[in-house]
Amino acid sequence: MRTIAGDLTKDTTLCLSLSGRPGNTGTRFHNYLYDALGLDYVYKAFTTTDIVAAIAGVRGLGIRGAAISMPWKEDVIPLVDELDPSAEAIESVNTIVNTDGRLVAYNTDYIAIATLLRDNEIDRSSSVAVLGSGGMAKATVAALRDGGYADVTVVARNASSGGALAERYGFDRVAELGDARPQVVINCTPVGMAGGPQADALPVADEVVTAADVVFDVVPMPEITPLLARAAELGKVTITGASVMSLQALEQFVLYTGVRPSPELAAEATAYSRA
Amino acid sequence: MRTIAGDLTKDTTLCLSLSGRPGNTGTRFHNYLYDALGLDYVYKAFTTTDIVAAIAGVRGLGIRGAAISMPWKEDVIPLVDELDPSAEAIESVNTIVNTDGRLVAYNTDYIAIATLLRDNEIDRSSSVAVLGSGGMAKATVAALRDGGYADVTVVARNASSGGALAERYGFDRVAELGDARPQVVINCTPVGMAGGPQADALPVADEVVTAADVVFDVVPMPEITPLLARAAELGKVTITGASVMSLQALEQFVLYTGVRPSPELAAEATAYSRA
Repeated sequence: MRTIAGDLTKDTTLCLSLSGRPGNTGTRFHNYLYDALGLDYVYKAFTTTDIVAAIAGVRGLGIRGAAISMPWKEDVIPLVDELDPSAEAIESVNTIVNTDGRLVAYNTDYIAIATLLRDNEIDRSSSVAVLGSGGMAKATVAALRDGGYADVTVVARNASSGGALAERYGFDRVAELGDARPQVVINCTPVGMAGGPQADALPVADEVVTAADVVFDVVPMPEITPLLARAAELGKVTITGASVMSLQALEQFVLYTGVRPSPELAAEATAYSRA
Repeated sequence: MRTIAGDLTKDTTLCLSLSGRPGNTGTRFHNYLYDALGLDYVYKAFTTTDIVAAIAGVRGLGIRGAAISMPWKEDVIPLVDELDPSAEAIESVNTIVNTDGRLVAYNTDYIAIATLLRDNEIDRSSSVAVLGSGGMAKATVAALRDGGYADVTVVARNASSGGALAERYGFDRVAELGDARPQVVINCTPVGMAGGPQADALPVADEVVTAADVVFDVVPMPEITPLLARAAELGKVTITGASVMSLQALEQFVLYTGVRPSPELAAEATAYSRA
């Protein structure tokens, strides 16, 4: 293991995260991989109250990469030099890469969701219901649209945010699923999230799970939400929020370092980051 | 030893150095002490080409401390909120401390030289010759003036910088020592510096060393310069540039952390930082 006193030098490249309320997952994930791959990088989360000053710091100190978390994902847009299509698609940034002073912004949540839809070979002609209208719903709906899915419905009680989201990507919005039985159900609400007020609940009626072919839950914790547990029990194809989270972190790692860890090593780093 | 993958967290405090051409000594010195004292800090040197942006970064990322090296020691003055008397005395900054967004600038070279004059009980009534007119000469002359030394002469061939330095602190300047035999000789020229063009030379005639009581060489490398070797041979009181360097780094450490390491531990960290 690389040590702080022995291995940090003037040449070590710094990556960081900027967040209103940071955790330690990213710090542990990236540093574990730097260690395992012998890369002269170091990663640290920062608590940020002034995003303009923080981005000035990324430029001024020549910091290679910055993960952008709540509440700064939209605020950084005017502060960068270029938006990658992944960030442009949802007008939201979670990753900035600094190449010789030029800042390019990405959204690796979008990239991760698009990749998981592709890798799981989810049929483009499927009927898809996206539950929720927040940031992850936006990334999901955009990835669906850009992936060529045509039969997508946004299911959101909030008529304003739900309607705007559906309209922006050319889909319909409904307040509730009612009698609809979509082939693909994607949960982007906090229902089922560990520690939340509805940690034990399903975001849809059991009949909806029964009728679906694919169940995708973007809730990252627990790894197996009640929705995913029920879907697995019924033999459905399942995609976890934990896989979105680890894949998006992996894509950040690749953007910062140019190195793609093996799936086994990435899984090890993910497990380490959550310990 | 603290490891990068295991011990860096969102709560770890970052200190850094800003320099045109950084080395690794500071990084090793501070990280060694954080380790030994169990402090949740990390230190890293940064190469800086834009000091305004870099100081914006110190503010924006809430970095606790910044060592300021060549060529930025004067340029940072308008960028901080307050000058400590140590920096004000010589209009030169080598340390910035960030307390809740307020940046106070210090000069720990000045502090170290003042401390060494005091701790070695150098008589205030001594005749003192300061050789040179650069940044360390300025710190030395200011520390002498503020320490109550009245009989100080600046010895500098450069009439412009030498004259300005002497005049500023109320002393005289001469081009050469000539027949003068000061009791205290302080070398602030690069003569005797390892790797320099005059690495093997003395900055004064041997008779001057013979006549002196105290010989102080601010050249930090080697630890025992030819001047100090000759002075030790003659049984003089000697003060090394290495002690200035380690003491100024120690004062930075105390300013950043509020913790004063024991002299033994500080010596260990100094030895480690040079290895």
